[in-house]
Amino acid sequence: MAVMQRTLSSEVAGQTGKAVTVQGWLHKKRLLGGLTFIVVRDRAGLVQAVVKDDKEVEKLRGLQNGTVMSLTGMVVKEPRAPGGVEIHDPKTEIISAVSEEPPIEVDKPLSHRSENLDTLLDNRPLGLRSIAERAIFKVQARVLQAFRDYFAQHDFTEMNSPKLLAEATEGGAEVFKLDYFGKTATLAQSAQFYKQMMVGVFERVFETNPTYRAEPSATTRHMTEYITIDVEIGFINFEELMNFAGGALLSVIAAVKKDCAAELKMWNVPAFVLPKKPDLIPRLTIHEIHEKFLKATKEDHTGEDDLAPAEERWICEWAKKDKASEAVLVTGWPSKSKTFKFYHRANELHPELADRADLLFRGVEIATLSMREHRYDRLIKQLKDMGGDPKNPGYAPLLSVYKNGMPPHGGWGWGLERTVEKIMNLDNIKEAALFPRDINRLAP
Amino acid sequence: MAVMQRTLSSEVAGQTGKAVTVQGWLHKKRLLGGLTFIVVRDRAGLVQAVVKDDKEVEKLRGLQNGTVMSLTGMVVKEPRAPGGVEIHDPKTEIISAVSEEPPIEVDKPLSHRSENLDTLLDNRPLGLRSIAERAIFKVQARVLQAFRDYFAQHDFTEMNSPKLLAEATEGGAEVFKLDYFGKTATLAQSAQFYKQMMVGVFERVFETNPTYRAEPSATTRHMTEYITIDVEIGFINFEELMNFAGGALLSVIAAVKKDCAAELKMWNVPAFVLPKKPDLIPRLTIHEIHEKFLKATKEDHTGEDDLAPAEERWICEWAKKDKASEAVLVTGWPSKSKTFKFYHRANELHPELADRADLLFRGVEIATLSMREHRYDRLIKQLKDMGGDPKNPGYAPLLSVYKNGMPPHGGWGWGLERTVEKIMNLDNIKEAALFPRDINRLAP
Repeated sequence: MAVMQRTLSSEVAGQTGKAVTVQGWLHKKRLLGGLTFIVVRDRAGLVQAVVKDDKEVEKLRGLQNGTVMSLTGMVVKEPRAPGGVEIHDPKTEIISAVSEEPPIEVDKPLSHRSENLDTLLDNRPLGLRSIAERAIFKVQARVLQAFRDYFAQHDFTEMNSPKLLAEATEGGAEVFKLDYFGKTATLAQSAQFYKQMMVGVFERVFETNPTYRAEPSATTRHMTEYITIDVEIGFINFEELMNFAGGALLSVIAAVKKDCAAELKMWNVPAFVLPKKPDLIPRLTIHEIHEKFLKATKEDHTGEDDLAPAEERWICEWAKKDKASEAVLVTGWPSKSKTFKFYHRANELHPELADRADLLFRGVEIATLSMREHRYDRLIKQLKDMGGDPKNPGYAPLLSVYKNGMPPHGGWGWGLERTVEKIMNLDNIKEAALFPRDINRLAP
Repeated sequence: MAVMQRTLSSEVAGQTGKAVTVQGWLHKKRLLGGLTFIVVRDRAGLVQAVVKDDKEVEKLRGLQNGTVMSLTGMVVKEPRAPGGVEIHDPKTEIISAVSEEPPIEVDKPLSHRSENLDTLLDNRPLGLRSIAERAIFKVQARVLQAFRDYFAQHDFTEMNSPKLLAEATEGGAEVFKLDYFGKTATLAQSAQFYKQMMVGVFERVFETNPTYRAEPSATTRHMTEYITIDVEIGFINFEELMNFAGGALLSVIAAVKKDCAAELKMWNVPAFVLPKKPDLIPRLTIHEIHEKFLKATKEDHTGEDDLAPAEERWICEWAKKDKASEAVLVTGWPSKSKTFKFYHRANELHPELADRADLLFRGVEIATLSMREHRYDRLIKQLKDMGGDPKNPGYAPLLSVYKNGMPPHGGWGWGLERTVEKIMNLDNIKEAALFPRDINRLAP
């Protein structure tokens, strides 16, 4: 048989009545009434083949799942097969034989999965061959590209800031330290200062930003290495910033709905409930949420400066029902608070409040938005008031750009893995990282 | 005056005869025969305004470059102004005043730049406000997106591998070590093993990959932190891999030519000389290049396993003249050599050679391509032959995917900054990194 062009599993259905060559991994094999059914996996999905020929059946008998192979045969309609077609009586060719049984069953459907998270992650390099597990990362890639498309539509410039820093000017407790030719360097905990500097250059910047935090908690919400979608925008006001973030969420979800329908279905993701326009995403102050939550649950957080996780979940449920939105923008953050950094801007009319909003989606905060103080004198004052020393050389690059002219600006840090976790309805952020890292895990 | 919609500098030319509001930074100011000319910079470029009104002139007198301002005035044709138009008699509004003279003159044209590299990099946060300096990073962003578009056209999945690793399995001398909750972790020197693992999942993957190397040299070619465009492709042969890389280069250069004409002009970049199709990029063996170079220069490298930098420059010049290509694919690399890693594949017909090619462009290697050994038994043998221990737990994840079925595959590591350096005709790779890092530099 002549060498044929490869057909992807997703293209087989369009070739009914013709001969095709499919290449991929043996995903599943079973004997049924004298026939051998095999399912082959490639990057596009699965395709089934039915083998009758004795010699071919014999050849297949000894193959383990994972075997890389090529099959050439006729495409026939079969409503019960994946994609509605199957390949009949293929000639098979082994590309890479597998001699031992695989340590995990990647052909198991999701509903039969019973591994605990550690087993899942220990087996990640092979486990990702499961159609469901890899679906998470198809969606992650789509989310990243959707963000980039949205930024491109709005005239942003992509930037890449350094992750090796001389010293941790901001924060400090949760910073990784490394030996840098006999000196100490730290790993960047955020691109904050760099993106602010770049407002003076490009006005609108974004970065797909690997972030490192020496987070000693081993929870479902924490990792030591994760990706934030970092944004900084000049010539913008707080209202525009909130709408821009809401627009990003709507744009990302629209892209996922359009291009990842199969992946969403695999994970039984409930339909997304979001308004048509970003300014329809409900905005509530922390105070309002505390009050509503108290009334509904008798649980009192009214004295607190932050939302409790239970409140975040509850308000998203409330907004879903009452406002047809699984997203909520939380405003009314106090400016006298540990979370108010020296570069944040207090509200002009209500200086006790920060120009800050948290974007909640499906029960968790996925992004924190804030306006920055762009006036040099006020910035210096805020830095001093909070105990910082403007003469600390770590601040020099940042302060120099404010001294030399900065427009009003704001931005956000947006957690990629957390967003994918919520989109895919997962239980743990680590399921949304290809090879997650936490206090206990540095491998594989 | 009513608040008007902001017009970008690049849009002003389309508004001749109308009033516009421009916002940006005061880039340059000069008095000329009773008139005050000012140039304002925004994210799109520069626009000139002419001020006659005494009160406005008085207001401008005290302003330093960098002042953030808004101007509203009539657009008038003026062939000598940037963009062929200028704004007449604007009403100005100061958004952020600047009280001190800026430490560097960002309005200087490139031909007047005289800073040495250290001064340039020390002043990076402000220096990037120069139209020429920021142009480099507009091009970098375009290059990144061009790569991604090319990968999307070819059905790739984007991946993000961890940079925090338990131990350095590959290499070791040039690895950064960090304190990881009392244990030692290392920073990833490459995404090599991870992208190989992902071939078993997605077949075709790419990563925009931050790379860390404790490189003790302070040269024009070395940094400790840089970005590689990493690719790994399953079901491909060596010939296809070379064409795919050539296609990527042609695609990236086409995008830059199309969208970055102004940026290229600013740096006097000579016209790109490249063939129309990737299979027309000249391919020469190291041996052939040694011989040609010896004949042309009397300098003898014929006994060496690698190309000398002078040879890389010379062969690209030769190919430009003789083959109308500034790119060259160098083949014929020996398999008995330090650069041949255990996961590389030797050529089937000529096992003394590796299935490897280096892509040279404008005199330097920008990418290294190679096929990987996909057959488990041979991979284990190569690992052992090179003194590696297959039982080393650092190899376990990688080896598990080969044991469980991998197709023939290959990929590349491609230096982003080096590519931008060559595209923009720069002298030093550090000019092509926003905030470069080397043995002596961890700031700004």
